Amino acid sequence: MPMLRKDPIAGRWVIIATERAKRPREYQVDTQHVRNGFCPFCAGNEDSTPEPVAVYPSQAGPEWSVRVVPNKFPALSTTGEVTPHSEGLYEGLQGIGAHEVIIEASEHVVGLAELPTEQIATVLRAWKERIDALRQDDRLECAVVFKNHGAAAGASLEHTHSQLIALPIIPKRLSEELVGSKRYHLAHEACVYCDIIAQELDQQTRVVCSNDKVIALTPFASRFPFELWILPREHEPWYENAEDELFSSFASVLKRVLQKLNRALDCPPYNLMLHSAPFPNGEDVSHYHWHFELIPKLTKVAGFEWGTGFYINPTSPESAAEHLREIDLD
Amino acid sequence: MPMLRKDPIAGRWVIIATERAKRPREYQVDTQHVRNGFCPFCAGNEDSTPEPVAVYPSQAGPEWSVRVVPNKFPALSTTGEVTPHSEGLYEGLQGIGAHEVIIEASEHVVGLAELPTEQIATVLRAWKERIDALRQDDRLECAVVFKNHGAAAGASLEHTHSQLIALPIIPKRLSEELVGSKRYHLAHEACVYCDIIAQELDQQTRVVCSNDKVIALTPFASRFPFELWILPREHEPWYENAEDELFSSFASVLKRVLQKLNRALDCPPYNLMLHSAPFPNGEDVSHYHWHFELIPKLTKVAGFEWGTGFYINPTSPESAAEHLREIDLD
Repeated sequence: MPMLRKDPIAGRWVIIATERAKRPREYQVDTQHVRNGFCPFCAGNEDSTPEPVAVYPSQAGPEWSVRVVPNKFPALSTTGEVTPHSEGLYEGLQGIGAHEVIIEASEHVVGLAELPTEQIATVLRAWKERIDALRQDDRLECAVVFKNHGAAAGASLEHTHSQLIALPIIPKRLSEELVGSKRYHLAHEACVYCDIIAQELDQQTRVVCSNDKVIALTPFASRFPFELWILPREHEPWYENAEDELFSSFASVLKRVLQKLNRALDCPPYNLMLHSAPFPNGEDVSHYHWHFELIPKLTKVAGFEWGTGFYINPTSPESAAEHLREIDLD
Repeated sequence: MPMLRKDPIAGRWVIIATERAKRPREYQVDTQHVRNGFCPFCAGNEDSTPEPVAVYPSQAGPEWSVRVVPNKFPALSTTGEVTPHSEGLYEGLQGIGAHEVIIEASEHVVGLAELPTEQIATVLRAWKERIDALRQDDRLECAVVFKNHGAAAGASLEHTHSQLIALPIIPKRLSEELVGSKRYHLAHEACVYCDIIAQELDQQTRVVCSNDKVIALTPFASRFPFELWILPREHEPWYENAEDELFSSFASVLKRVLQKLNRALDCPPYNLMLHSAPFPNGEDVSHYHWHFELIPKLTKVAGFEWGTGFYINPTSPESAAEHLREIDLD
């Protein structure tokens, strides 16, 4: 019997096919390659990108390890005012915002998982510092960090990189999570994510790996096979408020998770997304808990999903977590 | 300057890239073919599918034109009770529901657009009658009809067909539209869809084609390039309450829209989804207006979209509508 499961935060339903559950090797990973050739992100080709907004280590010169540049083809414009625009019953705004690219290595490395843990921690710090800087811009309401790995996940360059978009509005998915975590907090005087972490550590059926600061798990109402959430164990609404020593622990879990996925699913394309509270604007968001969501691209999203916002997941999160736990990296 | 636009019903935002807007021929249509070979949907192979739940014309015998069968690999089970299930803070239900396949022709036709208008009208009637039948089942709350055309849109068989899933819950996207249309109705004492139709007929910038009963338009806050909504001009919450004479008019607009898309975008894969009010349960849904949404599969949904529920659309709906209007089918 398939199961209908409800996400405890966003309230969305999924169908989990528990019977003929697909095993990792049954997914046909999209092997489509990203266009290759001249790489504007490699050391030596710095002239091919706009002037950096941050370089790590700072004052690095040619020996940089992480470089942040404005996107050459930005989705939003950094200059101008957030002017409302209306057209009859429709509403819009000027497309103001920031769109940056985080080049995660100076060498032509394709996967984040291939970098040393400390280099991944530098990437995590770069994300934090860029969000901190953009938070000062009164026109903006929040920032989203995301990484598209592989052509099927939307990457257009192979060299490992991530992107940051800062927006003058709060996007729908984040609003939904804020509403859901607030509702849970009102009902239970607790953070829903903290309670999920406690329950998952107790049940141990959906935990993939963890250390004393960070936990990676397959969510109860996973929309996609091998979907993962990676959360800090300690409650904190804003990613940019994370203590510096968290980044090494986080990088270590992220690297292990990516290595396990690569082993289980033959280096799948994936999307990694940061979910963090909006920039402080007087609204109480203390109930929120930042985290990352990771979605390997294994299935096609078809009409039923688009029509309903409701997903059919052919691998239960318990089975996905078990497969990933069993992979021994040592 | 890119534009941020807000969907007037669901409240979600999109970025419309108005500057270097992509023209139809700039999209690389995914030409991936659906697995071919023995076709279980062709006349003569009726033994390969479960017993039909409806055949058109009724009593057709071997000369059927449309056949509805239970899905051989259903996402939900038709038997059993909708029993709640809980696991700590998580909630679920037994996966009860219906999952049917509508075989839209007895011959091996690949596209709905290739069928005569009257045959398409028979398909539309089959959808209505199956929803009517499933509405009698007290365990179910609503039905979703959808069509995945082409491998990239999730089709696994080539022979033209659609699917119907009836559910014991109301999926998120439909709830959001119900909330949005109710809110608009409270504020304006009008149906938001009726007002959109009136404004679009007045502006004529996003109308693709129409007749006296039906209108096809590219929505103001299109998430995807060449996204289309097809709506009945007359207000009605439930698809299954449509007057029989509407189906020919609807089929005629749907066929024209598909032919225009095929011409403009080189036969793109697409998803077509019915949005109709949930089965009557005492809740007032008189403010809702049924319609179809059509999404050609031209872009990849990447991390930013998954992370935010917020889309970047590289072709403005005005430009998409203009391209489609210019295609002369006669």
